[in-house]
Amino acid sequence: VIASSSFELIALRGGLGAVPGVRLAGVHAGIKPRKRDLALVVFDAPQSCASVVTTNEIKAAPLLVSAAHLRESPTMRAVVCNSGCANACTGERGERDARATARQAATLLDLIPSQVIVASTGVIGVALAVDRVQRGLERAVAQLDSGAKAAFDAAEAIMTTDRVPKLCAYAFYHQDRKYVVGGIAKGSGMIAPNMATMLAFIASDFPISSEALAHTLRDASEESFNMISVDGDMSTNDAVYAFAPLSTSSGQADVPAVFAGALRAVCLDLAKAMVADGEGATKTLEVRVTQARDVAQARTIARAIINSNLVKTALYGEDPNWGRIIAAAGAARANLDPDRWSLFANGKAWVGVGGIELLSEAEAHRELEPETISVELRLGVGEAQATGWGCDLSRDYVRINANYRT
Amino acid sequence: VIASSSFELIALRGGLGAVPGVRLAGVHAGIKPRKRDLALVVFDAPQSCASVVTTNEIKAAPLLVSAAHLRESPTMRAVVCNSGCANACTGERGERDARATARQAATLLDLIPSQVIVASTGVIGVALAVDRVQRGLERAVAQLDSGAKAAFDAAEAIMTTDRVPKLCAYAFYHQDRKYVVGGIAKGSGMIAPNMATMLAFIASDFPISSEALAHTLRDASEESFNMISVDGDMSTNDAVYAFAPLSTSSGQADVPAVFAGALRAVCLDLAKAMVADGEGATKTLEVRVTQARDVAQARTIARAIINSNLVKTALYGEDPNWGRIIAAAGAARANLDPDRWSLFANGKAWVGVGGIELLSEAEAHRELEPETISVELRLGVGEAQATGWGCDLSRDYVRINANYRT
Repeated sequence: VIASSSFELIALRGGLGAVPGVRLAGVHAGIKPRKRDLALVVFDAPQSCASVVTTNEIKAAPLLVSAAHLRESPTMRAVVCNSGCANACTGERGERDARATARQAATLLDLIPSQVIVASTGVIGVALAVDRVQRGLERAVAQLDSGAKAAFDAAEAIMTTDRVPKLCAYAFYHQDRKYVVGGIAKGSGMIAPNMATMLAFIASDFPISSEALAHTLRDASEESFNMISVDGDMSTNDAVYAFAPLSTSSGQADVPAVFAGALRAVCLDLAKAMVADGEGATKTLEVRVTQARDVAQARTIARAIINSNLVKTALYGEDPNWGRIIAAAGAARANLDPDRWSLFANGKAWVGVGGIELLSEAEAHRELEPETISVELRLGVGEAQATGWGCDLSRDYVRINANYRT
Repeated sequence: VIASSSFELIALRGGLGAVPGVRLAGVHAGIKPRKRDLALVVFDAPQSCASVVTTNEIKAAPLLVSAAHLRESPTMRAVVCNSGCANACTGERGERDARATARQAATLLDLIPSQVIVASTGVIGVALAVDRVQRGLERAVAQLDSGAKAAFDAAEAIMTTDRVPKLCAYAFYHQDRKYVVGGIAKGSGMIAPNMATMLAFIASDFPISSEALAHTLRDASEESFNMISVDGDMSTNDAVYAFAPLSTSSGQADVPAVFAGALRAVCLDLAKAMVADGEGATKTLEVRVTQARDVAQARTIARAIINSNLVKTALYGEDPNWGRIIAAAGAARANLDPDRWSLFANGKAWVGVGGIELLSEAEAHRELEPETISVELRLGVGEAQATGWGCDLSRDYVRINANYRT
């Protein structure tokens, strides 16, 4: 249970499968050998839909087709997502294949194609085997179900190098009624700056307008997915889609804090799960940048630290080489004042103003031994703060990525 | 011999030691165990001096002190550079120590302290052992010499994780007189975005004003060091210093093309030597971005490709995963047109417009087997071009950087 001054969230099992009105399935369509590779999500009622997609100039075909569908149709009813093939850099054929996928699902589910969101993840430059998608969809439709098992299968079907499926759900009360926000996600690369695909599908049974949902999703993503995956440095396929029953009554001002809080909690949990499952990762690093002039400065510096290969390798080696953290912060060029910063490890003062070491080498090394490490960099220039999450860079990362396709 | 339409360069041995009027030495001062760790360069005549230094907001003490010296003194006479200690994030004490180093050298050489450039590379946050520097300087002064042996020792003394010392020199003729440009450098990190320190000291016996030298060095660095080490993402200690006998007569317009060409050739060779010596590197990648709208677009995209961990690991694994190259180019957000690019490997057409593969998987794999690989990305939107140099990301990179200090 997450409690805040204004609302309470109740953790649920089952991710997307815990949301009333959502049925889903994950099957083996044959795009990958043996493993599940096709997820289907179906909504009983017409849904408002909001998205946050990659800023990469090379956008995968399914992103382009889904964007067209969002323009064409006021509501969404289904999602099809395959792994094993990114359907990116596939030219006109790629778009035709993505449209075919939406049409196949629409035919099977008696919808119109523009009510279907399509997504893909996997190798770039390979054509999507639409005949296999067709057979997979037929199997998936037959298996559609609510609950944890179906959600687990669907979460597994969108995995690439992920070691574990990622699901998360929270319930909350609003005006004496219970609602749920739940999601599934994939992403196990070191994410930014390395552009491993990140996908998340989140739904709620709380009625909301598309505009209000878009606004709420944008804010939640800024504090979660964007603090592990830096805007402007994303893969060709990255996308977060959020769904909720269409309400025409609720304007942007009407979003209750408890719904925004639940959506943010789901985004945060899924983002942290991606970091913890980083390719070859052995440790998770939480970087809090505090006493910043403004949130933008804090975010820029937190991202720079979690994205530094030298910080990541030092973390892997449990080497308390704090200079790498400061060098990464300085390289961000966010007006770091060299005479005011101080550094903390797991709450303990590590380096004071002026570069004074307050922990011995042995003490600092001990702080880097746990699986989860929290570092706070105080900038000493204001009161804003931001948090970013990263993981270490291990030899296994290189092994996994040197031979991704072999 | 490098020949161009307008000038000819003659490759020489000895790097900085090949430049008339330069004496140097590299000794073991005891900052590192056993290895040489202190270089001293002395110029017989007062030198114009130009620098290109890190844009990191955290600047090491020797950079700040050298910048002050450049403001205080119109000419330079010596350089002291140590490895094993970066003297960065060392507060007021760091600046005191850097000034003490300059004073020590000035006293031994009968100069004024502001005529001495100081530089450091190594671990951040550790105080410089000035007493050891003093003893090392005494030894270095006694060993000062011109020629290849002294330059080799000096180049070795500034190494950190470098496997080989880096030296380069070219002779050229101007108005029937022979001149030399030579340099030494260190840098073996994967450089940007990882902020391993890059240092280069370059000198010539061609008389020039400080302003003209600054202008020429800036242009040469843009095409060399900045195409391996991205501006805005540099270490706390990065610096390139160039020296040449002071001439008050030559204004900026007077720099002969042959001098600029020789300086550029030295910068390029030293930059490529850093890439080839990348930590744990097994391969060198040359990325040419052609048919660009302008040079800025070409440079931005070339840098994005050589800096992508996914491209680097694919290269290590000889995995012809061209999608990673295109995804990195798209992530640079430099207006890449997704419908016009094409890709070449070692001069062979690899992927045509629209993502059409023109080499088989086996053929493309063969192109990635050599130690040096050249990739050309044609943007199809103009006539400008730029070249960047990178290396692969191997398991050894992680090993080296996880345990840098142990």
